[in-house]
Amino acid sequence: MATTINGPTRAPNGAAKDIRQLSIDTIRVLAMDAVQQANAGHPGTAMALAPAAYVLYRDIMRVSPSNPDWPGRDRFVLSAGHACILQYVTLHLAGYDLPLAELKRFRQWESLTPGHPEHFLTPGVETTTGPLGQGFANAVGMAMAERVLAQRFNRPGIDVIGHHVYVIASDGDLMEGVSQEAASLAGAFGLGKLIVLYDDNRITIDGTTALSWDHEDKDKRFDAHGWHVQSVADVNDADGLRAAIEAARHETRKPSLIRVRSHIAWPAPNARDTASAHGAPLGADEVAATKQILGFDPDERFVVPPGVAEHMSRVDDGRELEADWRRRLDAWRAEFPSLAEEWERVESGHPAPGWTDALPRFEPGGKSGIATRAAGGKVLRALQPFAPTMIGGAADLVESTKTEFEGAGRFARRYAGRNVPFGVREHAMGAIVNGLALHGGIVKPFGSTFLVFSDYMRPSIRLSALMGLPVVWVFTHDSVGLGEDGPTHQPVEQTMSLRAIPNLWVVRPADANETSAAWRLALERREGPVAILLTRQAVPVLREAVDAAAAGVAKGAYVLFDSGAAESGADGTAAGRGSAGADADGTGTSGRSAKTGAGNGATPDLVLLATGSEVWVALEAARALATDGRAVRVVSMPCWEVFERQPEDYRLRVLGPDNTLRLSVEAGVSLGWRRWVGDRGESIAVDRFGASAPGTTVLEKLGFSAEAVRLRAQALLERA
Amino acid sequence: MATTINGPTRAPNGAAKDIRQLSIDTIRVLAMDAVQQANAGHPGTAMALAPAAYVLYRDIMRVSPSNPDWPGRDRFVLSAGHACILQYVTLHLAGYDLPLAELKRFRQWESLTPGHPEHFLTPGVETTTGPLGQGFANAVGMAMAERVLAQRFNRPGIDVIGHHVYVIASDGDLMEGVSQEAASLAGAFGLGKLIVLYDDNRITIDGTTALSWDHEDKDKRFDAHGWHVQSVADVNDADGLRAAIEAARHETRKPSLIRVRSHIAWPAPNARDTASAHGAPLGADEVAATKQILGFDPDERFVVPPGVAEHMSRVDDGRELEADWRRRLDAWRAEFPSLAEEWERVESGHPAPGWTDALPRFEPGGKSGIATRAAGGKVLRALQPFAPTMIGGAADLVESTKTEFEGAGRFARRYAGRNVPFGVREHAMGAIVNGLALHGGIVKPFGSTFLVFSDYMRPSIRLSALMGLPVVWVFTHDSVGLGEDGPTHQPVEQTMSLRAIPNLWVVRPADANETSAAWRLALERREGPVAILLTRQAVPVLREAVDAAAAGVAKGAYVLFDSGAAESGADGTAAGRGSAGADADGTGTSGRSAKTGAGNGATPDLVLLATGSEVWVALEAARALATDGRAVRVVSMPCWEVFERQPEDYRLRVLGPDNTLRLSVEAGVSLGWRRWVGDRGESIAVDRFGASAPGTTVLEKLGFSAEAVRLRAQALLERA
Repeated sequence: MATTINGPTRAPNGAAKDIRQLSIDTIRVLAMDAVQQANAGHPGTAMALAPAAYVLYRDIMRVSPSNPDWPGRDRFVLSAGHACILQYVTLHLAGYDLPLAELKRFRQWESLTPGHPEHFLTPGVETTTGPLGQGFANAVGMAMAERVLAQRFNRPGIDVIGHHVYVIASDGDLMEGVSQEAASLAGAFGLGKLIVLYDDNRITIDGTTALSWDHEDKDKRFDAHGWHVQSVADVNDADGLRAAIEAARHETRKPSLIRVRSHIAWPAPNARDTASAHGAPLGADEVAATKQILGFDPDERFVVPPGVAEHMSRVDDGRELEADWRRRLDAWRAEFPSLAEEWERVESGHPAPGWTDALPRFEPGGKSGIATRAAGGKVLRALQPFAPTMIGGAADLVESTKTEFEGAGRFARRYAGRNVPFGVREHAMGAIVNGLALHGGIVKPFGSTFLVFSDYMRPSIRLSALMGLPVVWVFTHDSVGLGEDGPTHQPVEQTMSLRAIPNLWVVRPADANETSAAWRLALERREGPVAILLTRQAVPVLREAVDAAAAGVAKGAYVLFDSGAAESGADGTAAGRGSAGADADGTGTSGRSAKTGAGNGATPDLVLLATGSEVWVALEAARALATDGRAVRVVSMPCWEVFERQPEDYRLRVLGPDNTLRLSVEAGVSLGWRRWVGDRGESIAVDRFGASAPGTTVLEKLGFSAEAVRLRAQALLERA
Repeated sequence: MATTINGPTRAPNGAAKDIRQLSIDTIRVLAMDAVQQANAGHPGTAMALAPAAYVLYRDIMRVSPSNPDWPGRDRFVLSAGHACILQYVTLHLAGYDLPLAELKRFRQWESLTPGHPEHFLTPGVETTTGPLGQGFANAVGMAMAERVLAQRFNRPGIDVIGHHVYVIASDGDLMEGVSQEAASLAGAFGLGKLIVLYDDNRITIDGTTALSWDHEDKDKRFDAHGWHVQSVADVNDADGLRAAIEAARHETRKPSLIRVRSHIAWPAPNARDTASAHGAPLGADEVAATKQILGFDPDERFVVPPGVAEHMSRVDDGRELEADWRRRLDAWRAEFPSLAEEWERVESGHPAPGWTDALPRFEPGGKSGIATRAAGGKVLRALQPFAPTMIGGAADLVESTKTEFEGAGRFARRYAGRNVPFGVREHAMGAIVNGLALHGGIVKPFGSTFLVFSDYMRPSIRLSALMGLPVVWVFTHDSVGLGEDGPTHQPVEQTMSLRAIPNLWVVRPADANETSAAWRLALERREGPVAILLTRQAVPVLREAVDAAAAGVAKGAYVLFDSGAAESGADGTAAGRGSAGADADGTGTSGRSAKTGAGNGATPDLVLLATGSEVWVALEAARALATDGRAVRVVSMPCWEVFERQPEDYRLRVLGPDNTLRLSVEAGVSLGWRRWVGDRGESIAVDRFGASAPGTTVLEKLGFSAEAVRLRAQALLERA
């Protein structure tokens, strides 16, 4: 696609060399130099796969280096992220804003060339890879996103969406379970625009693939997954590689795997085909010897021979490709203005205006209450019309997680419905949802399963946080309160271990209205993922939260109930009632009782800090304590991370002054709660695994009844 | 194998019915009754697979119900753990100590019949399943254990080890990545004694398998994994099923998959072949209708028709099987007494006497120190001769994790070497190591990878803790100090999130000698797993820990350094030196400075709490502070969980009295540290993701230099 230079070119040593081969060898040499300079990195795969990167970036992909975010571009995922120097060098040569100086700063503090690709850092890098298998599965998500958008926005005669997703994957990528799950889904959905080059180099870190990989017939396995499979006998056969990719593009009903035989560190005379070339620099001598083989001067570093940059640049033709696309987009926009408006909105990642007003409000009362998972389902369906490209699903638990769009169809081979049947594949779900977000155009993709199974997809959750992706994780059955399924299904440590992940917001709403507010928080957050933790069991719709939840959840924690000053209530009735309900600034009846400063008569005797399904229990306990004349406050703390970001003044108004007695109530491990209850405080927690029995039984046995909370609180008050 | 009843038997309604069919139908009816009584559970699969359970327990498996732990037994794993009532009913009928009363208490508090199988609870249950794919992979580990032990203990003419591992797996099990990884390894290792019945019922929770499973050719996939594959067209064809299992037993070079077509909830007239029959009771009417179809009285519950218990009991023939085996064992014991002694030791899970004396001691000094991963490797090799059946490995990172036995070979098709090349399959590694431990005879199996990738195997780590398995998880590259590989490879939240798992001990040793002590702790623990977290980078061998580490690590935390009383040191030199070195009870120079009670002149001004590679940094900072006349203590806290179990008196002696000023230093999230530093304290932590740069740079930039710690400490002291 780029312009072709006619006539022979020369290698640095003066020997005639085809410009294509010279460009490929330049990639190899720059990769060696960068790794050697950093004295760390993975040179072997980068050297071996230089022809693949060359063919993709020079001949195949529709990209525009001057606008790496052009929505019409093909996507490229280096699932074998350890070989990132291959991508960096190629991006540099293709004309992306990644100067040679950054290649020289490979793997250094605050360089644009980190040790594994970081999509938020380096222009042209579409996703953060390194943890194996993730990139592969991200790419499946990207190809699904392309299909959703093409279906929604293309009109007969005018295609505004139509691009491919290319992947380079290693042995390790394909060994990982996450990629196998994702490969199966890609086959199920017939993602014809997904093309994976598998680097079949027969080397693993611990030796050769004979150890535990050669026995597996990869071609047959991918065929069994429903893929179109080809092989290329030598990666250095660039024409053969190109032909295979073209054939893969012609196969539109199946994803394609192209198994490409390569030799790690090729053509290094000694390092070639060795495991050590995977993860360690070659050493100066080997680099020099290799340069000599390639016709480069062993004494020079970071050399780009004349003609190579011009030959490999995609800047000009990329601009043309983009301009063509924009002309098509303009014509389409003229013909379908409302569609175009929607397009712009989804590209910006926002739901349609009015969505916040559509969020359901739940009225208190009713005997049995409503499970927050059920409330969550209602919220999702209320949002449904406002975010037409929002898609998501569950790992074969949609009946339980209630995360289904009504009448929006299922994502399948022939139709890209909004409900994705991920199957029992949590990990692929996580990485695919990340891919949907990375692609762009998909507003707030989500995945859901039971909270305990968030462990199965934790690496992808972590990456969503590291990448700052605007995705939603819906985890239901969020405590031992789920009951009979027992300890294998009862989360205990999951809420806290999710809180441990930087940049992930974990929201555990207390009731239906907090659930509505939690979804609002999730939709409004742009800079990272939000996990919403919901109950299996019914919980009351709290009178105290009806008006307060929206503002309160937005602040992470808020006063839900304040029984009033202690001194007033000797008779045990009046003082304990009636003061519930939080005002708009989320601090509840703070005017009366939540002033900062110790010794204030209105400072509560005790603050109960609770989350999720334990909030109503704490409220009942507080009411009982209030009738005994105690000044008790209940704080709902749905989101620690957001509460941490509030001004100290607000936090003190909610928590009470430093020395306030506090008791936390959460059906999970106590680890981490000391931060909030302080040295004087205590935690009602679950520092053990759960048990199989009806949910109410388990909760009661473990101390989560109103009466048990009241007794613990009373004992704490008496000791204090 | 059990005795056969001659002549016709009758169903409860009087119709003639073959005893075999009657027994199968009894399993179905009891399963329905138990689920209905619990009003929760998964009846459909249990009903459908009754013939499979019957054939396995009645005709195929060598088991001894009166001694469920008989080492010579065949293993059975219900990977589809949700169908546990199938196993409970069959165990009851086969004569295990699981009375009918327990079937009636299905899924109730403290019953022996929890909602998913718990191996530590129910006689005859070999592993805890429910999280899908885990049981499948456990079984791979069990089959590997069998091979290790057979190779080690069998002698020509006398086989004391020789049994099979049978699995029932569901669609969901096979969709999960962990099972795909494990299937590939089973193929690589040619585990001929592993036989998996795959329940091909074409129903998933969210509907039919058409959603995202039918497209996959499972037979072809398992063939590609290197398995022997058969299919049985109807699970009700018990003879066909038996024949397939026999054929699988004859195929000794490959693991076997038998795909068995079944109809969920068969023969329930309405629930059959429906997704709802998966996870919900059928309802009283449907149960009644099904009973009628099967010739049972709809009004009676928990009925075992005459003849069934006798027909299905394996008690007598199990005793005979066991007695035969014991005779063989006795003959073997007489011929190979030292082998027999070793056998008894490994069955009890202990290394050979003298192992503690063999643990290496590392001398301080030397410029560069030693990475704790390297120390760990030395420890492992020191233990090597003492635990001949200890096996383990890494997820293709053994060069990095240093967890290799020398000259002990690799586990492969022809030879069960002690180094298992798991490939890039962390999750399968976790579940397989669990399986090795569950089997028995394998002393302290272990798995290793980078700490950040513990996330990939977290569900298996959790199960090791839930089951209380004596396994070791070795996680190296345990902080941002690993350097250039960047944030995808740098653990930040992993140390704390592992600490959140109940019953898992997390040990992060400060130096080589603490590493030796950590392995000792790990080998001595019987009631659960131990995770050992090790550095990539070199750390000094601490003079202070040489003699103190063994006792100190065994208590979880101990005083490593105490600069002496504050009042003495105005000149900034004398007071700050020389008092290092902890005494045998692990409280360091406690006689002088670590008395309990505030106001004691010897109470330190500040206690630095550190773990792992941050301990030497804290020590350097403390020495600098001591020269300024501050009384500073350094506590190494390698294992919180063990420290928590110490008497309060010891904890106070180490931490100082309640109001002591404390500063924690750990290159991980601060979450959880408040527990130890208290309200007055602070934490030097990493509450963000890492960055790609040389390790020392990253550590320094994030505040983990001695000077940065000193400054933070000084500021804290000044504020206090």
